[in-house]
Amino acid sequence: MKNVSFQSKNVAGYVSSQELKSVFSVIKLIHEALIKKECPGNDSIGWLNVDSTINKELVKDIDETAKDIRKNCDVFLSLGIGGSYLGAKAAVEFLKPNFFNEFKNERPKIYFAGQNLSADYLSDLLKLIRGRRIIVNVISKSGTTTETAATFRVIKKYLETLYGKKKVKDKIICTTDKREGALRRMAKEQGYKSFPIPDDIGGRFSVLTAVGLLPIACAGIDIKGLLEGAADFEKKCNILNLEQNPAYKYAAIRHVLRTKGKTIEILSCLQPSLRYVAEWWKQLFGESEGKKGKGIFPVSCEFSTDLHSLGQMIQEGRRNLFETFLIVDNLNAKISIPRDKANLDGLNYLAGRDIEYINNTAYQASASAHYEGGVPNMTVSIPKRTPRYLGQLFYFFEKTTAISGLLLGVNPFDQPGVEAYKKKMFKLLGKPKK
Amino acid sequence: MKNVSFQSKNVAGYVSSQELKSVFSVIKLIHEALIKKECPGNDSIGWLNVDSTINKELVKDIDETAKDIRKNCDVFLSLGIGGSYLGAKAAVEFLKPNFFNEFKNERPKIYFAGQNLSADYLSDLLKLIRGRRIIVNVISKSGTTTETAATFRVIKKYLETLYGKKKVKDKIICTTDKREGALRRMAKEQGYKSFPIPDDIGGRFSVLTAVGLLPIACAGIDIKGLLEGAADFEKKCNILNLEQNPAYKYAAIRHVLRTKGKTIEILSCLQPSLRYVAEWWKQLFGESEGKKGKGIFPVSCEFSTDLHSLGQMIQEGRRNLFETFLIVDNLNAKISIPRDKANLDGLNYLAGRDIEYINNTAYQASASAHYEGGVPNMTVSIPKRTPRYLGQLFYFFEKTTAISGLLLGVNPFDQPGVEAYKKKMFKLLGKPKK
Repeated sequence: MKNVSFQSKNVAGYVSSQELKSVFSVIKLIHEALIKKECPGNDSIGWLNVDSTINKELVKDIDETAKDIRKNCDVFLSLGIGGSYLGAKAAVEFLKPNFFNEFKNERPKIYFAGQNLSADYLSDLLKLIRGRRIIVNVISKSGTTTETAATFRVIKKYLETLYGKKKVKDKIICTTDKREGALRRMAKEQGYKSFPIPDDIGGRFSVLTAVGLLPIACAGIDIKGLLEGAADFEKKCNILNLEQNPAYKYAAIRHVLRTKGKTIEILSCLQPSLRYVAEWWKQLFGESEGKKGKGIFPVSCEFSTDLHSLGQMIQEGRRNLFETFLIVDNLNAKISIPRDKANLDGLNYLAGRDIEYINNTAYQASASAHYEGGVPNMTVSIPKRTPRYLGQLFYFFEKTTAISGLLLGVNPFDQPGVEAYKKKMFKLLGKPKK
Repeated sequence: MKNVSFQSKNVAGYVSSQELKSVFSVIKLIHEALIKKECPGNDSIGWLNVDSTINKELVKDIDETAKDIRKNCDVFLSLGIGGSYLGAKAAVEFLKPNFFNEFKNERPKIYFAGQNLSADYLSDLLKLIRGRRIIVNVISKSGTTTETAATFRVIKKYLETLYGKKKVKDKIICTTDKREGALRRMAKEQGYKSFPIPDDIGGRFSVLTAVGLLPIACAGIDIKGLLEGAADFEKKCNILNLEQNPAYKYAAIRHVLRTKGKTIEILSCLQPSLRYVAEWWKQLFGESEGKKGKGIFPVSCEFSTDLHSLGQMIQEGRRNLFETFLIVDNLNAKISIPRDKANLDGLNYLAGRDIEYINNTAYQASASAHYEGGVPNMTVSIPKRTPRYLGQLFYFFEKTTAISGLLLGVNPFDQPGVEAYKKKMFKLLGKPKK
């Protein structure tokens, strides 16, 4: 059976086996510390064990809720920010067709809000969904995150105007802390349906909890497949061997590269449907590592588009970069290049070739050209756009992040710096002190 | 009258007036060299003079063509990559409502293709537009750019199947070189309607030529306003005074910051509608500067979303960053936060406040927090989402790029490194030699 796979031949000359061996000796210690829960942030590593994050009854509940929503609703509106939205958005965009909300027969439409404070965005969205049967899933551990809470207030009032106060109860589902917080209290008092967020899993690691799974299931995606894929890779990414464990290999290479002045990592995606996987990846690595003046800055590109945009910079700019390609081996569609008698564009040498074959060649050519230009690179291959493989990918990146952050000497599971702008914002807004 | 404006108080302590004065003495020389056309890449600075890039008859022709298309077509499909697509996409996304293609009364729908080689993307798009009245605008100076040419072949065949070979002629508009190249020959031989790309303007500077203007006009946007805005800023950005010329000030600050190890610039946008303005900006700066091992790596964020994603990294990660905020002063919509009796989320202190007021406060708070955290930053303010202000913004960034690149000692108007992957790709694909 195929799996998500990792290869790194294009780091030769930048990373030696001696260096990897030396890093691996530290990874061994981290491996033990994670098992014994003796690492920094050890109260936030629940995601490590996929089965512990969610039980069968909960999966069944999510699946049945989603089935009901898919039958009775036109619009599923997910409210959340950061880790409460990027994982679900990544899965939906990767596994659904491009432009999925625009297809007439797609139901429910899936929209995200509460991730920003743009009046125009919210206003346009409300216009768009007016008159349709809406269900809202509000996702926030505390229930007081400004963006999501403010948007929820607006949406709730909007629903009340449409349906009347009494009926609104059935239009709202909360995903929040099991016991505490504003949203939990609201759910109890108003009688909203609710799903729990585990205590020991932080936002950016929460895609395989109810946080991600409910929106994903509502998009008609097989969440069991997603969880099975993650469980596959829980095993694979726990093997104490650098060659057999892609997460340990990837983390080790990243560590060596950053000690050599490679301060930017580009995730170069070869499919537009990977865009939000990249956004999720950026939060995962950036928020886990960016502490104490350290960390690799995570950037994403969409190829081949961006070969005609940032390609010049990657090829010949400052040599502080390395790159991780993210490719899909087998697409859903096949489209071949037609032959053209006149051949004015000179493309007849490609006639009969699948467009995706050229795409794959563009990947190979850029990986090789960038390497020769001074940008070491690796490749993560996804066999197909399926829930199982996406589950594998999610787990692979999460485990890599944990190892990477611990190698760097930071707590990869906290985000103390996110408070800085909030404090200032609350002061400017005149938020009352408790 | 208001204008796009630039402020830089949050670089204090990083950039001194003495340093700026010293950079300005070089800018003066560049200013003269641009006027005398004695700078590197002087055959590609046609965009400097807005009126010279496009004449009134051409604007009239574009406007009338667009009017006809808006009356008779359901789908406007723009094929192009890099500079042949990002400017138009930026304008359409910034000036149209969010989700514009999803509104029933929006016509024509505007789609972009030929910017990638994804079989799934193209296949999904073709399914989506089946049965609708389609017009295709293929944009390529040479007509042989692989992505666009391959996609054009597929689309042409698709149209032929739908409409028959004869009628396809009226469904295609070419934007290409005035005299030469594959697409120009095709236009002549097949009798396609066509628009010219000026000789002295490279792709990433071409948004205010037919390249950008036809798709923008087809989206129902006032292109005269766009051109007038650019002309406003042509004057403003030609004043030989650092305090009165925002492009010279921005370029000077960027130059000082990069000499101090600030190797990443983040364009932090406070509106989702600015996403493709950021993508356009990334190509503009990245492709102009990324040469000879130099250049600032351009990155974009979408706030406040990304404050809960990359915010941690910006606040406390490696201090190799500076930031340029891009904000919109007055939105189209106003949405106020409702009061809630129970106040479980504690947001009643914001009741009655406009959501955009909180957004603006989030901007102020993050600018201040990032500055105190070691990230100098500047702000570009757009008074409103109008064509005129977007024209000002386009010109402002273009002029800044030119000055920045010339200060860096590179030719900001070429892109030699883009050939590297192409050469390898053609070899792998077995492209016949001419």
